[in-house]
Amino acid sequence: MKSIGVGLIGTGYMGKCHALAWNGVAPVFGDCAHPRLVHLGEVNAELARRKADEFGFEKATGDWRQLIADPEVDVVSVTTPNAFHAEMAIAALEAGKHVWCEKPMAPAEADAERMLAAARASGRVAILGYNYIQNPAIRFIRSLLDEGAIGNPYQLRIEMDEDFMADPEALFYWKSERSSGYGALDDFAVHPLSLIRILFGGVASVFCDMSMPYADRPTAQGGRRAVETHDVATMLLKLENGMRGTIETNRSAWGRKSRLVIQIFGSKGSIFFDQERMNEVEIYQAQGPVSHQGFKRVLMSPTHPPYDSFLPAPGHQLGFNELKIIECRQLLKRIAGDEAVLIGFEDGLAIERTVHAAARSFAEGRWVAVGA
Amino acid sequence: MKSIGVGLIGTGYMGKCHALAWNGVAPVFGDCAHPRLVHLGEVNAELARRKADEFGFEKATGDWRQLIADPEVDVVSVTTPNAFHAEMAIAALEAGKHVWCEKPMAPAEADAERMLAAARASGRVAILGYNYIQNPAIRFIRSLLDEGAIGNPYQLRIEMDEDFMADPEALFYWKSERSSGYGALDDFAVHPLSLIRILFGGVASVFCDMSMPYADRPTAQGGRRAVETHDVATMLLKLENGMRGTIETNRSAWGRKSRLVIQIFGSKGSIFFDQERMNEVEIYQAQGPVSHQGFKRVLMSPTHPPYDSFLPAPGHQLGFNELKIIECRQLLKRIAGDEAVLIGFEDGLAIERTVHAAARSFAEGRWVAVGA
Amino acid sequence: MKSIGVGLIGTGYMGKCHALAWNGVAPVFGDCAHPRLVHLGEVNAELARRKADEFGFEKATGDWRQLIADPEVDVVSVTTPNAFHAEMAIAALEAGKHVWCEKPMAPAEADAERMLAAARASGRVAILGYNYIQNPAIRFIRSLLDEGAIGNPYQLRIEMDEDFMADPEALFYWKSERSSGYGALDDFAVHPLSLIRILFGGVASVFCDMSMPYADRPTAQGGRRAVETHDVATMLLKLENGMRGTIETNRSAWGRKSRLVIQIFGSKGSIFFDQERMNEVEIYQAQGPVSHQGFKRVLMSPTHPPYDSFLPAPGHQLGFNELKIIECRQLLKRIAGDEAVLIGFEDGLAIERTVHAAARSFAEGRWVAVGA
Amino acid sequence: MKSIGVGLIGTGYMGKCHALAWNGVAPVFGDCAHPRLVHLGEVNAELARRKADEFGFEKATGDWRQLIADPEVDVVSVTTPNAFHAEMAIAALEAGKHVWCEKPMAPAEADAERMLAAARASGRVAILGYNYIQNPAIRFIRSLLDEGAIGNPYQLRIEMDEDFMADPEALFYWKSERSSGYGALDDFAVHPLSLIRILFGGVASVFCDMSMPYADRPTAQGGRRAVETHDVATMLLKLENGMRGTIETNRSAWGRKSRLVIQIFGSKGSIFFDQERMNEVEIYQAQGPVSHQGFKRVLMSPTHPPYDSFLPAPGHQLGFNELKIIECRQLLKRIAGDEAVLIGFEDGLAIERTVHAAARSFAEGRWVAVGA
Repeated sequence: MKSIGVGLIGTGYMGKCHALAWNGVAPVFGDCAHPRLVHLGEVNAELARRKADEFGFEKATGDWRQLIADPEVDVVSVTTPNAFHAEMAIAALEAGKHVWCEKPMAPAEADAERMLAAARASGRVAILGYNYIQNPAIRFIRSLLDEGAIGNPYQLRIEMDEDFMADPEALFYWKSERSSGYGALDDFAVHPLSLIRILFGGVASVFCDMSMPYADRPTAQGGRRAVETHDVATMLLKLENGMRGTIETNRSAWGRKSRLVIQIFGSKGSIFFDQERMNEVEIYQAQGPVSHQGFKRVLMSPTHPPYDSFLPAPGHQLGFNELKIIECRQLLKRIAGDEAVLIGFEDGLAIERTVHAAARSFAEGRWVAVGA
Repeated sequence: MKSIGVGLIGTGYMGKCHALAWNGVAPVFGDCAHPRLVHLGEVNAELARRKADEFGFEKATGDWRQLIADPEVDVVSVTTPNAFHAEMAIAALEAGKHVWCEKPMAPAEADAERMLAAARASGRVAILGYNYIQNPAIRFIRSLLDEGAIGNPYQLRIEMDEDFMADPEALFYWKSERSSGYGALDDFAVHPLSLIRILFGGVASVFCDMSMPYADRPTAQGGRRAVETHDVATMLLKLENGMRGTIETNRSAWGRKSRLVIQIFGSKGSIFFDQERMNEVEIYQAQGPVSHQGFKRVLMSPTHPPYDSFLPAPGHQLGFNELKIIECRQLLKRIAGDEAVLIGFEDGLAIERTVHAAARSFAEGRWVAVGA
Repeated sequence: MKSIGVGLIGTGYMGKCHALAWNGVAPVFGDCAHPRLVHLGEVNAELARRKADEFGFEKATGDWRQLIADPEVDVVSVTTPNAFHAEMAIAALEAGKHVWCEKPMAPAEADAERMLAAARASGRVAILGYNYIQNPAIRFIRSLLDEGAIGNPYQLRIEMDEDFMADPEALFYWKSERSSGYGALDDFAVHPLSLIRILFGGVASVFCDMSMPYADRPTAQGGRRAVETHDVATMLLKLENGMRGTIETNRSAWGRKSRLVIQIFGSKGSIFFDQERMNEVEIYQAQGPVSHQGFKRVLMSPTHPPYDSFLPAPGHQLGFNELKIIECRQLLKRIAGDEAVLIGFEDGLAIERTVHAAARSFAEGRWVAVGA
Repeated sequence: MKSIGVGLIGTGYMGKCHALAWNGVAPVFGDCAHPRLVHLGEVNAELARRKADEFGFEKATGDWRQLIADPEVDVVSVTTPNAFHAEMAIAALEAGKHVWCEKPMAPAEADAERMLAAARASGRVAILGYNYIQNPAIRFIRSLLDEGAIGNPYQLRIEMDEDFMADPEALFYWKSERSSGYGALDDFAVHPLSLIRILFGGVASVFCDMSMPYADRPTAQGGRRAVETHDVATMLLKLENGMRGTIETNRSAWGRKSRLVIQIFGSKGSIFFDQERMNEVEIYQAQGPVSHQGFKRVLMSPTHPPYDSFLPAPGHQLGFNELKIIECRQLLKRIAGDEAVLIGFEDGLAIERTVHAAARSFAEGRWVAVGA
């Protein structure tokens, strides 16, 4: 199996997550060659060198353009702040590299469109880091839907809640600035939309409400500054396949750390999932004696691929970081020309268009078609 | 303590529930006189007599007007189908009786308005059977809010789901007929609205979407008949106090038997409740070391009145029927001129106006003010 | 249906619970005559009269022997402290009354034996108040076992924990005195033993360990007094049917309010139950695709009798007090000569012999046969 | 930071787990040098070469003695079947290598003693793979105990259940042979004992019962063969610190996949943990208003080290394999002469002596002191 040269730009939360995935993918899956960790880019050379040593990369640079110019690099992980995604991803694609860019594509729709155009022009693989879709539990849900386990699904609810913005006395920071986006709508709702895309396809139209739990926040300079983004966003959806759905997001939801609850209602059963217990799927099937029916809590096991590549014993639990290893494996498959479950730039743009349509709906108080 | 004469019209699900409450209220609460179970009305004399014996009523009648005319009757429980509520309640009030009417008041807004007018004219106590609000757990939530346990609440989510309409091959029956109302909107959503009213007050405006999981259902005569009501209803709310909220209801939600989940988000914490585990309240408070914070599952106990009137030991569980005993106790208090937690006809009308506003919103695809 | 005259001695926790049952049994089950609440006994006439009014009894007495002599009384509820059970129950039986005595029979084995002898001599119905066995969930478990849902059961674990003795600084009271019994062993373990008896039959031999979490407790007079009973008791069991089992009890278990967890392991599946969520049974069945197997949470519903006598809708929850109504119904059945699920004095004595055998095992550090 | 040369013998379940740990430890913890993956040993050269490529090892051998002789190897992971542990670990120690051996040390106590002697003689680090103790949740429990969060702990219960032996019709294999050990006692109970050791210290005496759910199992040759090991083992414990405890294990427990439940009862609170939800700790503290007390579900977060080395966001979940990365980090610390939380050969032998004492207790039906 031939080797593949990896470049990584950014070493924050997601940068480290990519690094762990590049280190883990071959030992976990066995049938991959070891990716060769070639080049790491950071904001300055010293940090880059230190992180390269930690993460096992050979070269380090404070100038990401050098990394992209490196002929030994075949694929580039882009894990920098959202505002840099377009520039870096486009440059990498134009240099003939495959791109693994963290979500979302870009704050502005026009930038996201340019990214897709660059991907198409390059003929390279260009995907987004929507790792929740990689969970074996989500694969299992998809297979349950495919086999008709709950009949015809007609409605879904997704909630995504965390509490990192919940403290009204936490200092104002960039996530409360308008330039960062709408708030929970693009920060969070894109994840549920990625799951919907994988499970059910596209969104036809959307109604949205948003709100600000706290009007202002203290600043480091003293005084308070008005908040400009909405930490709460709620969407009603009509899917292209005829289903209805809701997405409720709140990034000020005290006590919720990684809540991402999915409820799917069908003509023969229901499915429940919560990312805070990401190794469990609950399913209700209206079959057998009524007295024996109930929600069944299924623990992920080797019968739910690719759990089996990590562990031979059931119920032993995967972790969040391991979803990124699965994503990395899918990326390698797609690069190899094989089938893979991923959100590419095309699907990513569709997700971001849904977000922008939702913002328009909120402004105008009416349903908005996501369309062309 | 003086006795109070009771009349009961209807002996179905809620009729039996009222009967259990009238039998149990004095033994449970001790400080009430035994209500005197005077007169029971049903559709015919035989059924009335049989049920009177079962439920411990003295007289029985196949003509409810006789019951209302009975001078020994002080208070009338109206538990007949919704279409009869207005006629019976108004007659009882005009006869000088107090009225305990099952929710909702009436399918038509005009009838509900007549009921309120009759109640006002009579000077009698006229309340609606919104028993979920009587749960000690809900009282506890109210006291948590009052004491500032979660700071300033800014958002709430309520889900109410059951599955008695979930089977698409169940025979068409009256709940799918337009004349029965809108569907889940008036059948279910009134319960969340009653809880919101008790906890937070009125609704200012509403946006609503509804859907039909199944276009038609089989009929007893063979063939299929088009469904006319919506088993799924979703509402976005702006409350008078400035909070935002959502209500999601589904009476075709396979596996959900009595799900009524309340989530309240505040500036210092969150609250979670599910009626399927009606003796538990979960609370998260952002206090103490971060490493020690988490949702705390509080089991109802004698410290959560009026649980103590039922049981001296914590965690031993109340049942659904016992909520009705609490409601009965509250009714007796109000009749005695004391403070009581209840949905009277005035609040009940406000709830039903919210429902009608929601239906208009659905028809027009825009926010609708509940107002006058 | 003919009426039955009821006498009630004692109005504490269990006395009130009996009173609620006697009031509720006919309205709930319909096919019973209303029991006639004839006579209530308490330690003095005033308290007796007040409680009789609250609970709906006609006569009241400060002398329980008067109650037993009352020819209008057919059945006597004995809910006084354990030390009085033998005297009162025997007197009632000798007077030709049926007896419904709270568990346990008596602190001393010899007294329990006299009670059984009196019951046999009288030909009357004599039962004990082991209400946990009346839960529809327990009936459901029994039916699951009968139908072979988990194949051949070979092991069980029961935990029973509460925390009313958990505070080491709570004042010394009679439950810490040796005269009250062994401690958790007779206070708690009899409940698991009653459940085992209903589900699986008798215990052949037992090994026991006990411990005292706190050596002494403060007294009202100041100073501290040595604790004489064991708040923690653990038993290993060999059942007559060949199964093994464990019972773990702790009445100083902080946070446990009414925990009574049952786990049953069989050759084809497992069952889990917790009294703190008394309307749920979890079952795992090793059938269907491995990927779809999991513990199924079944909510009690009208398909789990006698839930249907209380509620026509599933998942709406019964309460602890309602178990006593079911027990009362079973008692009325047995009095009428019908089949009933109950712990009579014979089974009750077998349970208490198991407790005494356990105490001997603890003293001697070896397995003890329960036998003759 | 200087490099360390790694040898790995065995590539089964635990072998792969070690490989993932050796690959992940530096990227996760950052402050380690990348371990150099030098040499991999398997039963034949071909398998060794294939696995070496998958896991990223340089050299491969079908003769483990070559690996141990390799001067570039500093530390040897021994993950072969238990019967080989003694020979390989002793050879490695004698060759001056550090040893990371999977638990248990050896089926026979004498072999385990020889292993300890070899470790002592070598002056090298010799540890056992008791990875459950590495969970940040277990660290958190230890810190809760240290800070007095539940006062004085006096009792603990541990249950460990899986279902890989649950099918009575699964073919007889080596785990049912006497030569493999006692059964659940040494296969499972050592894990609870390792947790007890880390949290509370040593065991003074033990009482044990064991049983065989199934007398025989089918063989590949047809017919059935008598089972020789006990799939169920229950232990009562008296700890050296005065606490009492129980361990219940069952490797035929249908539906339990990785259940490892710990309950700790103290004078001021209780702790609950289940490995199947390994990122959660439940704690009850008897403080604040009684009405507000309950079990609090704490999700692991960056405030629970070393979770923070994996993830900067709370509630995002670690997986089972990541416990091995933590164990690897601890091993590197100990090799560097730093403080580390580990079960070395000395503690490991104490654990295995407890197991052998339990077996004697079972045979003799009495308490057995673990002692010398």
